[in-house]
Amino acid sequence: MALTVSRTATGREFKVKDIAQADFGRLEIELAEVEMPGLMACRAEFGPTQPLKGARITGSLHMTIQTAVLIETLTALDHAAAAIARDSAAVFAWKGETLEEYWWCTEKALDWGPGGGPDLIVDDGGDATLLIHEGVKAEEEYERSGKLPNPNETENAEFRIVLSIIKEGLLIDPKRYTRMKDRLVGVSEETTTGVKRLYQMQANGTLLFPAINVNDSVTKRKFDNLYGCRHSLPDGLMRATDVMIAGKIAVVCGYGDVGKGCAAALKAAGARVIVTEIDPICALQALMEGIPVLTLEDMVAEADIFVTTTGNKDIIMVSHMKQMKNNAIVCNIGHFDNEIDMLGLETYPGIKRITIKPQTDRWIFPETNRGIIVLAEGRLMNLGCATGHPSFVMSCSFTNQVIAQLELWKERGSGKYEKKVYVLPKHLDEKVASLHLGKLGAKLTKLTPDQAAYISVPVEGPYKPPHYRY
Amino acid sequence: MALTVSRTATGREFKVKDIAQADFGRLEIELAEVEMPGLMACRAEFGPTQPLKGARITGSLHMTIQTAVLIETLTALDHAAAAIARDSAAVFAWKGETLEEYWWCTEKALDWGPGGGPDLIVDDGGDATLLIHEGVKAEEEYERSGKLPNPNETENAEFRIVLSIIKEGLLIDPKRYTRMKDRLVGVSEETTTGVKRLYQMQANGTLLFPAINVNDSVTKRKFDNLYGCRHSLPDGLMRATDVMIAGKIAVVCGYGDVGKGCAAALKAAGARVIVTEIDPICALQALMEGIPVLTLEDMVAEADIFVTTTGNKDIIMVSHMKQMKNNAIVCNIGHFDNEIDMLGLETYPGIKRITIKPQTDRWIFPETNRGIIVLAEGRLMNLGCATGHPSFVMSCSFTNQVIAQLELWKERGSGKYEKKVYVLPKHLDEKVASLHLGKLGAKLTKLTPDQAAYISVPVEGPYKPPHYRY
Amino acid sequence: MALTVSRTATGREFKVKDIAQADFGRLEIELAEVEMPGLMACRAEFGPTQPLKGARITGSLHMTIQTAVLIETLTALDHAAAAIARDSAAVFAWKGETLEEYWWCTEKALDWGPGGGPDLIVDDGGDATLLIHEGVKAEEEYERSGKLPNPNETENAEFRIVLSIIKEGLLIDPKRYTRMKDRLVGVSEETTTGVKRLYQMQANGTLLFPAINVNDSVTKRKFDNLYGCRHSLPDGLMRATDVMIAGKIAVVCGYGDVGKGCAAALKAAGARVIVTEIDPICALQALMEGIPVLTLEDMVAEADIFVTTTGNKDIIMVSHMKQMKNNAIVCNIGHFDNEIDMLGLETYPGIKRITIKPQTDRWIFPETNRGIIVLAEGRLMNLGCATGHPSFVMSCSFTNQVIAQLELWKERGSGKYEKKVYVLPKHLDEKVASLHLGKLGAKLTKLTPDQAAYISVPVEGPYKPPHYRY
Amino acid sequence: MALTVSRTATGREFKVKDIAQADFGRLEIELAEVEMPGLMACRAEFGPTQPLKGARITGSLHMTIQTAVLIETLTALDHAAAAIARDSAAVFAWKGETLEEYWWCTEKALDWGPGGGPDLIVDDGGDATLLIHEGVKAEEEYERSGKLPNPNETENAEFRIVLSIIKEGLLIDPKRYTRMKDRLVGVSEETTTGVKRLYQMQANGTLLFPAINVNDSVTKRKFDNLYGCRHSLPDGLMRATDVMIAGKIAVVCGYGDVGKGCAAALKAAGARVIVTEIDPICALQALMEGIPVLTLEDMVAEADIFVTTTGNKDIIMVSHMKQMKNNAIVCNIGHFDNEIDMLGLETYPGIKRITIKPQTDRWIFPETNRGIIVLAEGRLMNLGCATGHPSFVMSCSFTNQVIAQLELWKERGSGKYEKKVYVLPKHLDEKVASLHLGKLGAKLTKLTPDQAAYISVPVEGPYKPPHYRY
Repeated sequence: MALTVSRTATGREFKVKDIAQADFGRLEIELAEVEMPGLMACRAEFGPTQPLKGARITGSLHMTIQTAVLIETLTALDHAAAAIARDSAAVFAWKGETLEEYWWCTEKALDWGPGGGPDLIVDDGGDATLLIHEGVKAEEEYERSGKLPNPNETENAEFRIVLSIIKEGLLIDPKRYTRMKDRLVGVSEETTTGVKRLYQMQANGTLLFPAINVNDSVTKRKFDNLYGCRHSLPDGLMRATDVMIAGKIAVVCGYGDVGKGCAAALKAAGARVIVTEIDPICALQALMEGIPVLTLEDMVAEADIFVTTTGNKDIIMVSHMKQMKNNAIVCNIGHFDNEIDMLGLETYPGIKRITIKPQTDRWIFPETNRGIIVLAEGRLMNLGCATGHPSFVMSCSFTNQVIAQLELWKERGSGKYEKKVYVLPKHLDEKVASLHLGKLGAKLTKLTPDQAAYISVPVEGPYKPPHYRY
Repeated sequence: MALTVSRTATGREFKVKDIAQADFGRLEIELAEVEMPGLMACRAEFGPTQPLKGARITGSLHMTIQTAVLIETLTALDHAAAAIARDSAAVFAWKGETLEEYWWCTEKALDWGPGGGPDLIVDDGGDATLLIHEGVKAEEEYERSGKLPNPNETENAEFRIVLSIIKEGLLIDPKRYTRMKDRLVGVSEETTTGVKRLYQMQANGTLLFPAINVNDSVTKRKFDNLYGCRHSLPDGLMRATDVMIAGKIAVVCGYGDVGKGCAAALKAAGARVIVTEIDPICALQALMEGIPVLTLEDMVAEADIFVTTTGNKDIIMVSHMKQMKNNAIVCNIGHFDNEIDMLGLETYPGIKRITIKPQTDRWIFPETNRGIIVLAEGRLMNLGCATGHPSFVMSCSFTNQVIAQLELWKERGSGKYEKKVYVLPKHLDEKVASLHLGKLGAKLTKLTPDQAAYISVPVEGPYKPPHYRY
Repeated sequence: MALTVSRTATGREFKVKDIAQADFGRLEIELAEVEMPGLMACRAEFGPTQPLKGARITGSLHMTIQTAVLIETLTALDHAAAAIARDSAAVFAWKGETLEEYWWCTEKALDWGPGGGPDLIVDDGGDATLLIHEGVKAEEEYERSGKLPNPNETENAEFRIVLSIIKEGLLIDPKRYTRMKDRLVGVSEETTTGVKRLYQMQANGTLLFPAINVNDSVTKRKFDNLYGCRHSLPDGLMRATDVMIAGKIAVVCGYGDVGKGCAAALKAAGARVIVTEIDPICALQALMEGIPVLTLEDMVAEADIFVTTTGNKDIIMVSHMKQMKNNAIVCNIGHFDNEIDMLGLETYPGIKRITIKPQTDRWIFPETNRGIIVLAEGRLMNLGCATGHPSFVMSCSFTNQVIAQLELWKERGSGKYEKKVYVLPKHLDEKVASLHLGKLGAKLTKLTPDQAAYISVPVEGPYKPPHYRY
Repeated sequence: MALTVSRTATGREFKVKDIAQADFGRLEIELAEVEMPGLMACRAEFGPTQPLKGARITGSLHMTIQTAVLIETLTALDHAAAAIARDSAAVFAWKGETLEEYWWCTEKALDWGPGGGPDLIVDDGGDATLLIHEGVKAEEEYERSGKLPNPNETENAEFRIVLSIIKEGLLIDPKRYTRMKDRLVGVSEETTTGVKRLYQMQANGTLLFPAINVNDSVTKRKFDNLYGCRHSLPDGLMRATDVMIAGKIAVVCGYGDVGKGCAAALKAAGARVIVTEIDPICALQALMEGIPVLTLEDMVAEADIFVTTTGNKDIIMVSHMKQMKNNAIVCNIGHFDNEIDMLGLETYPGIKRITIKPQTDRWIFPETNRGIIVLAEGRLMNLGCATGHPSFVMSCSFTNQVIAQLELWKERGSGKYEKKVYVLPKHLDEKVASLHLGKLGAKLTKLTPDQAAYISVPVEGPYKPPHYRY
């Protein structure tokens, strides 16, 4: 297995040859294992038959303790890997990588030597997938016209780096990415952003290999968004500010799964929560939980805590922030740092920034001398100010990845998966859930054949139609 | 408009020529109107253009106050009807109908005189749809072979009645149902049971006209199941038994939307809730809310309150009931009375039934002399022991019906809808939601064009992909 | 035992010779017994030793099913009574008593024939106690001056009746109440109103016999107020109006125990709750639960539901009511009907009252044609629109009464209780609690002697200092 | 003002001449001020009249940022102090003090030079009070018999240090503590432990000066215990272990205010909570919230998280801990580290301790190789693993201290306070609450004189009788 790391505001990242040398100790990994029952159950259930034997897997993931448990799980399903233990997985990542270094790592993780690239990709954000697609595009253009990609043609700083890497590679080996896509069995992708890009490529007819969207598994989305953020929003708030949440007025922008988790946590802690929404259905759901739905403008001068959860941009603008109360807390747990107008804030004339502690800044407006407290520089506050999702949440996400990898590998010759995007079949989503029940002491009821027939489902599931909403 | 009533354990049903003569007064209807903002908003928005002008609509619905508001809404969208006010809607229904009378009413409601049947059907349980399909089948057989349907061939007592009606009709007019289906533009159906039958007919290729499934609108399902039952389960328990819920142990069988609503209500009232589930995903959701998932057998001797919410049969058997504590309460809010083994209970040797009050019976087992309290004879306890869902919930369901009727009528000549089952398009589901926000004082945020482009949705919605789970 | 009934807006009251003839059947009483574990435990624990043997007990209580269980419990602790079963308790009460009849009943219940009055009084509102005190006062005046009480001297209609009864009695037997108080061992009183009067008499030096205040037992107050109203407020709202609580804005006036129970129930049902308070400590408690504290004026035009819980008067005035939204619901669960300005409403010029159903009226203001819905004519809505507290709550209250009666009777000669008001000693309050644990499946931990010494409490309790707040 | 610091497992403590030199910066103090509205309101309200002018105040407190705000508040009420700003408060404390150093600091803080000791003491744990009482006792014995205290006579290591300090002082000045108590106006004490000692001294007749118990103010206890721990228990758990709380089984030992806060927080986070209790009233309260009451033995092998909140000792013994699941978390938020049998754990034969990170240890039992995770070495986990209570909670506690100091100083010559323990009068408790309402946007309703008379309270409060339980 070859691993690379997505860059991230925080997170513990490292550069090592193998996981055993990582700076989180074996003890931390073992503690995480107890909280990742899905991955451990995969090892127990699939380990004996070595279903990933011989597969070359490249991962492009945040390098965390939970990722280490994922890596060890994948290697445990590959006989050779299991035999030579933990040094089979090379990791290309380190703390504080520059963008150039990050993409160098991504390229390295895709390089499996003479035989081409990986058989499978575990993607988280879609960067490995992007690099291959752009590489193939450039190689085809080069073959056709002899033209090399021109990094200076793009204004996007990061894309310029991508093109530079591809250009350099082309001069050495003009078929590298082409061979890579020829070998590749498929990718499984776990982020909303990555999945969106895959669907766009599918729509454009440019997708080069099958992709499984694990982001939309129930066991992934509800955990990563609803339960995960219900846990990590107050965690981040408390670590960053030590502020009493009870009694405060909190505005949660967006009432999707992330917003629902945040609002539930804040209410439970004794805050008064107000939600902003664009979608009337989600708005009605908030109202049914006793949460008012108002606009940011209605509450901007009154609230104590602001949380963006929308997945959209330009949610809290600097014009809002200057109206806020002194020491209002502003944070984002939705998506990129553009939910909060950080650029507007940074360039506001006369603004003064005082770092209270890392990831906790007070920005003081010159006209009013009032300061607002911005967490994690507008990036994901649960990553920046706390430690991200707990291991149990990541166990759900990563078990989806493992199950998807197994499915892709098992069906590699069958033609079941075309160059399209697939959600994980519901019975596998249910499988992921069932692998997590034992740890929590749950006992399922079994359908009788008669009952199963009555509701027209197989005794062993799947139990719900695809459109079921949970 | 012609109306007929589905039979029901309770509910106030009546036989009248027009709504104005119904035994619920104008006052009650006016009070319900305030709580049915979706229907009132339909009148305001669509009334002026009379979009249902000239449409013949037959409804097959429980006749309640809320149904009266629906009827008046539909007639308000039909110019003629509005002019001659309330006597335009004939209602065929009365309290305590027999099965024979019920089907007689259904037939009558479909009979619009010489011109054939209705243009549109508002169905709730699929009985009107069933009658037409069976009628057409019999007419075709009769034309082909001269054979009349034989009511004695079926063991199902109710189906025997259906066949008898069709048989009698055939002798008078052998093309009646055929003409009816030829005229019919479509049906909108709001129950799980009715929708299931529609999908089966679609799969078998026997569906005779377009059908809109309003049951799977978010604004229908979440309200009818989750929010509705969260309201009406404790209502039914308190009216039937006056029992203190706090401190009790309650087993909720099933953790779908109905189970989620019931569990939330019981927890909030201070009960200890245990859930039983067959589906590992729903089980995991229960665990994330701090609710243990066990089997009925684990809890049967310990719990005080048992609620079935599964939509399946044979959930609580008489063998379970005899193990229960004295005065354990057993009730069903899921589906038919076969969730609880009423037959087993009634035929248990030596069992003694004492009616505490209507819809509340104590069944005493001879061996132990312990009694259990069964609500609503195993039928839906929120209908039998309370007054069903509140008007606001029904407003959501019925607004879906109105919107679906409008859509079918508008597209009647366009060929947009084939002989298939369609869910209501998401922008109409969102429309239903938005019609309910004003009453609750909510203010939506508006997307800028730039934001809409960023997340690739139209400014006016729909805002979510079809598979979004809310 | 002799029983009389306090008048009440509703409640099932009756006039019978003995409980067996009451119009609630044996079955209902047996069902209530299962939910009144404290009283049943008293029978089991104290029955064998007949600790109330020979005691004459007069009760002045609402006559409900739960009161029947109390009566049977008290008689079970009196040997003679137990022997001759249920006809030993005479009940003077019937449905729809007039005020005159009510006081006639009270007098009758105090009349035990030649030997004078009762040994013990179980009081609920203090009327029996009042009659004796007023009687003694009149007899003393009559002895001193020969003057009879003059009913016309008072403007209070009810007090006029009391004086009339005393006056008539005086002419027959001028020492009747004096002999009664001489015999009387003591009274136990369970209402805030009754207790307040007792403390005033203690302060004035006019209290004629010992009194135990069971109202301030934790097991009485928290149940009667907090847990009882959390149960019965939504019960009353749903029975009276069938309104969807979710999504509504509810104003709870007062955040004492009753207000806390109401606010918790409304929040749990999905309402947005706002509290009004005069007491900054209670206000701060509301804020810590995420509940805004505003004034009625702030919310009067916006809220859907108004609940008074204050124990004070003039909370919602007619001037407020005319500002409310159409169909706003106004109800009282605190105290007398003067929390809501019923007089102002009834006498408002041009007001129109329409009774939707008994205990649910719509009052329409002429200027706006908007109607508000007032429950139970401003009296306690959980009594008027539902069935009052559940049996389990009453079990806590009544077990306090039984324990207090036992204590008074046991100490009748010891001089332990002077002519003062006593709260029930904490170990007896804890006793009441422990008698209710078994039914709910609870298992207590036992202190070791070493642990008991460490925190300076007896191993067997009481475990808390008197000022402990729970 | 002279300050000393109680030793504590953690907390940022320091040795400085004045607060301005402390290692928490001015910024942190200013941020805390915003969250301590009670103290800031005291400055605004009382600052102008300088009511503490000339008072010598010694504090014996944990030195935290919040304490800094308290100190600055007290100095702001003393004219001289305000004039010379922040260098008027000497602080004797540093991080990692030994016991000897701690008591040296305490002695220093009481030393105001020739004129004797302080006029007032702000005590937190009662150590300053203890030192004076022991000092006076020793001086009296010395005067009577010439005998010096003998530190070797006690087995308690800490008390030996106290006696040593007194002995050394005696040789220099045999009247030092006697003069100190002669001057002292009184002490205000905020901990349960300190208050208990004061009541014991009162009972024994040995209390040397008036004491105000601010621990039992509602605004202190509910905040410090209920609301404070509801906030800081999950904070500590998340910082120490990053564990997902949802889905876990948590045992909370004790359901007093601390236990209620912990149980509420854990339930809200999605854990299944079980409570252990000795007190039947508290047990019944847990049941009414849907929380089972069982014994530790029932749950020891099943639960994931154990929290002690009892204020008693020997709650979780090593014999329990060895039965726990692998990686069960054990922590204490109640009182001293003897709630958990740390000694038994440390001396268990063959036990292995691995420090995961500071304040988070894994203890592995040799027989089973299972490890349990103990937080903060059994001491208060919210202090050890998080940052203690949020500033808002401390604002409530400290405002009680300020109000008590003002009361003692104002009444210093009046004889109002004898050598007894007093709770803060209710109107002052209400005052503390009202000083915190503005920050949270609350608006109180005002009683009319008529309403006040009706419920027999002054218009301005206090509004509740002393025994009211909130």
